[in-house]
Amino acid sequence: MRMVDLIMKKREGKALTKEEIAFLVQGYVKGEIPDYQVSAFLMAVCFQGMTEEETFALTHEITISGDVVDLSPIEGVKVDKHSTGGVGDKTTLIAAPLAAACGVKIAKMSGRGLGHTGGTVDKLEAIPGMKMNLNREDFFQAVRDTGLAVIGQSGNLTPADKKLYALRDVTATVESIPLIASSIMGKKLAAGSDGIVLDVKTGSGAFMKTKEDAKDLALEMVKIGENAGKRMVALITNMDVPLGNAIGNSLEVIEAVQVLQGNGPEDLTFVATELAANMVYLAGKGTLEACRKQVKEAIDNGTGLERLAAMVSAQGGQAEVIRNTALFVKAPLEKNILARESGYLISMDTEQIGRASCILGAGREKKEDSIDYSAGILIHKKTGQAVKEGEVLATLYTSKEETFTEAEYCYLKALVFSEEKPQESPLIYERIALEKDDKS
Amino acid sequence: MRMVDLIMKKREGKALTKEEIAFLVQGYVKGEIPDYQVSAFLMAVCFQGMTEEETFALTHEITISGDVVDLSPIEGVKVDKHSTGGVGDKTTLIAAPLAAACGVKIAKMSGRGLGHTGGTVDKLEAIPGMKMNLNREDFFQAVRDTGLAVIGQSGNLTPADKKLYALRDVTATVESIPLIASSIMGKKLAAGSDGIVLDVKTGSGAFMKTKEDAKDLALEMVKIGENAGKRMVALITNMDVPLGNAIGNSLEVIEAVQVLQGNGPEDLTFVATELAANMVYLAGKGTLEACRKQVKEAIDNGTGLERLAAMVSAQGGQAEVIRNTALFVKAPLEKNILARESGYLISMDTEQIGRASCILGAGREKKEDSIDYSAGILIHKKTGQAVKEGEVLATLYTSKEETFTEAEYCYLKALVFSEEKPQESPLIYERIALEKDDKS
Repeated sequence: MRMVDLIMKKREGKALTKEEIAFLVQGYVKGEIPDYQVSAFLMAVCFQGMTEEETFALTHEITISGDVVDLSPIEGVKVDKHSTGGVGDKTTLIAAPLAAACGVKIAKMSGRGLGHTGGTVDKLEAIPGMKMNLNREDFFQAVRDTGLAVIGQSGNLTPADKKLYALRDVTATVESIPLIASSIMGKKLAAGSDGIVLDVKTGSGAFMKTKEDAKDLALEMVKIGENAGKRMVALITNMDVPLGNAIGNSLEVIEAVQVLQGNGPEDLTFVATELAANMVYLAGKGTLEACRKQVKEAIDNGTGLERLAAMVSAQGGQAEVIRNTALFVKAPLEKNILARESGYLISMDTEQIGRASCILGAGREKKEDSIDYSAGILIHKKTGQAVKEGEVLATLYTSKEETFTEAEYCYLKALVFSEEKPQESPLIYERIALEKDDKS
Repeated sequence: MRMVDLIMKKREGKALTKEEIAFLVQGYVKGEIPDYQVSAFLMAVCFQGMTEEETFALTHEITISGDVVDLSPIEGVKVDKHSTGGVGDKTTLIAAPLAAACGVKIAKMSGRGLGHTGGTVDKLEAIPGMKMNLNREDFFQAVRDTGLAVIGQSGNLTPADKKLYALRDVTATVESIPLIASSIMGKKLAAGSDGIVLDVKTGSGAFMKTKEDAKDLALEMVKIGENAGKRMVALITNMDVPLGNAIGNSLEVIEAVQVLQGNGPEDLTFVATELAANMVYLAGKGTLEACRKQVKEAIDNGTGLERLAAMVSAQGGQAEVIRNTALFVKAPLEKNILARESGYLISMDTEQIGRASCILGAGREKKEDSIDYSAGILIHKKTGQAVKEGEVLATLYTSKEETFTEAEYCYLKALVFSEEKPQESPLIYERIALEKDDKS
């Protein structure tokens, strides 16, 4: 088998066999196939796509390229959750404790934020003392004890994905549905859960700018998971507006706690509880409707919040800050952004808003950048709301005075006003589950 | 400027600016842009193409990436000739001496054969003593003295093309008209002639399998040359059948001499004299019709053959073998291939026939392979001819007995017989020249 022939095959729009994909991925990881051949192949995939069989084979090779976590030492049904990334997306901090409170086991590995999107690991590290690098045994024990644990990616998980992703990033081959699907699902399958709820975001703050692309990606991932014997649900959710009102690590933890206390913003509460209900559903705890009720109860009776606090304790964090969020360190500087005009706020370029938060110190542009946990944005006016000139649109938080001008400029540029009230968009566009697995 | 953005731009089907292409090629040659980004870019070009301006800019960067030959120390109009490669294509050995006999100056750099196609350097090296690596001054002096000289590529000519071609070869990005056109024309422009006659071959023995592709490539190259201020003509010629009857280095030199003596095969004589006439035409020696007459005279009065002998002498070769081709070393072994059936020969897979010749030792599969100059094939029956069972189709020549079986198998597999006589195909499909330059 020669790599150049496989590139030509893909260039001509033909499907590679399982064996050919194994040859390619294994050869690449071993360093026997050079970057320049793989990048040409990836570009050909961007134009020619991959069949369902090819995408599954690629995912499988990514999964088995490194350690595959065996969660069987943890009793119960283990359910994972994955978001394709958004702005203000703190749903894991809400959905995971709620699902745990309903009896689901969650042994989750999360990522850090990069660019305009945040990452769960960063948000949890805003909690003083929180350890995100538990060893395998402590991780499992934490899940056994409290029902959930969330750590950073550890061990030698999916080295093929790391190598492929790094190459895609510098060769303009990131945007390709089979490549994205296999990258995400390769990692999720290696993480070992029995069921996976996918939150595929679409809109101005998401990687998938159109609903069609988001749906294609969701379907592709659900099929991969089902083929691998997992129970799968995907929700296509709205990322044309930041989720909730808080962006920035401490601010988002505080807002997650508010939702778990039953007084969080409506949009965030809705999306996070739907994700939680689907996690509970995949764990086989009844119909989707019954699962929604259990999740609501876990808010009403405080068991969701308890689970979050228990998780924080188990991972060495100060659970007091969860019970009393006033203990979080505040940003030393804040500044209100005032409306320059009156009218309806009709759209928010959510990626730009994510960048504004980044400028304030809440995120990183490059992997090496450090994070200011207290920095970020609290949004007071969102798409659809009427605004009067001089009203506060948002409050910026930072430790660096000099960032205000650029962040404010960036934030204001992201907003569009009009005299007419815009139509409301759904928060969840669609729920995707293969029928055989859908008893809702 | 970031290479990843240029890749994305091309991936999205947009045209790169001159400056962007300069950045890319210069950065690649300097080693500042890695192979893996360039290969992804090249694959995107295979799908998205390049505009005329982009292709010209790429060609220009290839040309100026190394030495550009200044032929001005040689008086007169310098005309070059390039063939895209075929089987049995010894036209340079005929057209160049004929054009020189008509007063054209030819300072030509040629390539070696690879795969099923032969190369002029190899053919000339079949002549004992022939030196293909003259230094610049000896090369120029030879052209001044005899009107023509043909050497191998020397000096640091188009290093960008060498690097790009090597990468394309292993990343399945060879077949792309703008990439092929810029590669060929980059070298031709660096070689410094005032006019260039292109022989773009199409058919089963050519790289361009269809007439449409051949025409696109020819047009692309003619436009590049004109944009660079060169006089250009391209002939689209038939490579569905080997050109002439001889394949293999000594055999082809002998056949070229026969054409120059006025007794060569008709097809080869026609194509080679048309190429020569166009070279004479580009040198401004009258209308194309007048140039054809001059070329015919150069055969009739023997001045073409004289020029070939003079060139051979000037380059250290034994000119006696040109005057008496019986002096060429013969292959020690020969074998006739007999027809297994009667009927009309309706097609010859010319690439396969080229491979058969290669198997006998006349060509090289890899750059490092050595060549047996006496090996090759003499064809007795060509497409369109009636054949009786038992008649000799071709004679194989080699030094290695063990190659006969495979070569014969390969040769016979290339032939298709039928009861019906096939339609005749033209030898030259089309002549392409931009109007402003065409006074024929």
